[in-house]
Amino acid sequence: MDGIEGLKLTPLRIIESPLGDVYHALKNHEDSFSQFGEAYFSTVVKDQVKGWKKHTKMVLNVVVPVGEIQFVVYDDRPNSTTSGQFVEIKLSKANYQRLTVPTGVWMAFKGIGPDQNMLLNIASIPHDPEEAINLDLENDVIPYVWK
Amino acid sequence: MDGIEGLKLTPLRIIESPLGDVYHALKNHEDSFSQFGEAYFSTVVKDQVKGWKKHTKMVLNVVVPVGEIQFVVYDDRPNSTTSGQFVEIKLSKANYQRLTVPTGVWMAFKGIGPDQNMLLNIASIPHDPEEAINLDLENDVIPYVWK
Repeated sequence: MDGIEGLKLTPLRIIESPLGDVYHALKNHEDSFSQFGEAYFSTVVKDQVKGWKKHTKMVLNVVVPVGEIQFVVYDDRPNSTTSGQFVEIKLSKANYQRLTVPTGVWMAFKGIGPDQNMLLNIASIPHDPEEAINLDLENDVIPYVWK
Repeated sequence: MDGIEGLKLTPLRIIESPLGDVYHALKNHEDSFSQFGEAYFSTVVKDQVKGWKKHTKMVLNVVVPVGEIQFVVYDDRPNSTTSGQFVEIKLSKANYQRLTVPTGVWMAFKGIGPDQNMLLNIASIPHDPEEAINLDLENDVIPYVWK
């Protein structure tokens, strides 16, 4: 992916079966895995956006098994080689990949599919509001215009 | 739950939001958590059954965020106080609980919902066909009749 330092996209397998498919998400021996803190689902209604949020301690591993979600990641880390860069990526069953998000970057995500849009985050630490920084969608820090 | 030794049901929170709900699954400080081996999704078509399977090493933590799935667990461990017992439980958004399945018991699950039926398993070890034992639905070991 045209890139942000530390941001990784990993293609994942879907194993088809007439009884019902199996979707890989994350194994403990993969590079993307650091440690297990918490797993949770977040859904996002079509055309709604959740974000912006920057995690100072949590590394995210995100997959989208249901619907379609557009992720936007912004790097404003002063010491990053990709400072100032954006990455936009849509994940779904049709583009089934894992997005690994390092600490220190901004992320927001938007519901694209008409029905349910659901991500799973396998996070390196349990939810802790103290470690996350929130910004309104309209702000003076992140030069991104939501269409 | 009327029980099988080591089988646990844990009610989980769904946090509602107009932007999209958040569903808890598992945190590393909860009793149900032992270690992280792999997370994967399994879907099951309406009226189809996946199983029977017995894990000799994997502890399962299963949640059903999409659709509805009926689980049947059978204990034939000779040293279990609940040997010979069955547990039947339907999980869905409406009955949103985590099912923790110990090693050594048989499990199968059936799709109930008309559309997609999807479970997430947060397993204590990565997938390893060597540690799992499979039985056909019709067999001489498990006295269960699927309706």
